[in-house]
Amino acid sequence: MNANKIPDIIIGRLPIYLRALQRMADKGVQTTSSQELGERVGISAAQIRKDISQFGEFGKQGTGYHINYLIEQLQRILNIDHEWDIAVVGAGDIGSAVARYGGLANRGFRVRMLFDSDPQKVGEQIGAFTVLDSTSLVSSIKKAGIKIAMLAVPAEAAQSAVDDLVKAGVKAILNYAPISITVPGDVRVQYIDPATHLQRMTYYLE
Amino acid sequence: MNANKIPDIIIGRLPIYLRALQRMADKGVQTTSSQELGERVGISAAQIRKDISQFGEFGKQGTGYHINYLIEQLQRILNIDHEWDIAVVGAGDIGSAVARYGGLANRGFRVRMLFDSDPQKVGEQIGAFTVLDSTSLVSSIKKAGIKIAMLAVPAEAAQSAVDDLVKAGVKAILNYAPISITVPGDVRVQYIDPATHLQRMTYYLE
Repeated sequence: MNANKIPDIIIGRLPIYLRALQRMADKGVQTTSSQELGERVGISAAQIRKDISQFGEFGKQGTGYHINYLIEQLQRILNIDHEWDIAVVGAGDIGSAVARYGGLANRGFRVRMLFDSDPQKVGEQIGAFTVLDSTSLVSSIKKAGIKIAMLAVPAEAAQSAVDDLVKAGVKAILNYAPISITVPGDVRVQYIDPATHLQRMTYYLE
Repeated sequence: MNANKIPDIIIGRLPIYLRALQRMADKGVQTTSSQELGERVGISAAQIRKDISQFGEFGKQGTGYHINYLIEQLQRILNIDHEWDIAVVGAGDIGSAVARYGGLANRGFRVRMLFDSDPQKVGEQIGAFTVLDSTSLVSSIKKAGIKIAMLAVPAEAAQSAVDDLVKAGVKAILNYAPISITVPGDVRVQYIDPATHLQRMTYYLE
């Protein structure tokens, strides 16, 4: 398997290409070039060709890429040719917004469970979800075979929730809690923390 | 000025260090080592020393880093030794959650304005904010001298909102809309799109 050989930075760009291609497909566009795609995503055509060619020959010189075909291939490569169930932990403002967010549905994901540890929130209806008690998290997630979680709890509660998620068999965590978390080597983590994103930009401001 | 010489990937790690240091300071810890900091953030001690030394000599062999001093230095480097005002565009689920999010306050940012183009939302009270009409966006932001915006509008509306933000003098945009946006060379963009983050992880799942 080539998985270990392809740099993660390339993997990280594939969803950006896919997102732009899906928008083009939605508008009925059938073919595109690395040039055109590059203008849409702000990445050079050469970089795009190089990235995509890591996985095979999906375009032809002169005719470019067939959009639907390339979408299918990228979905296969990214393992989203089927839908993944997701558990959201934390039913505060962010967790609730994330659970209700409609933008995941057509991109390979479906939120199935929403947990909170606050007895006042457990049982509450948020969008399509009845908030579940975090004490049942390990067993519920394990039983459902859910492998992906979004974590939206306060920083203090994050590591303990992560430990539970790992115990439940979760292998990928999108962490909205503003703290670094520790996981075993076979679990992936991505971070969403608006303050760190903002600070990365203020460095360049006067 | 060294700004152009330091790779953005290093700049991107400084907020992670700062976040961990602030948590230690909150707990009353006074000194730390690159080793200890590294364990907290999942980055090697050598990398941390190398990153930080790009900006000066902030630690001493043997005694390590004085946390409060290093925090001050990182805040100065990242230009957050003063607070930045922020405008949020889009008062839907995500925009509202982001505007109300308490986690920005002690990290250099303060949301000052919340805009929406939907007449039904304009005037609505969301947390401390009265939703403002997007038609006044350019003049209001310009008048207030706001340089940073968080964009939480649907993909279709993103580029036109970005063009308005640029016109208003905004120089840094945190984009929650699931689409790549185009800005002039002197404007920075960071993206938060849960689906792309998730897809970057599913690649590695079986």
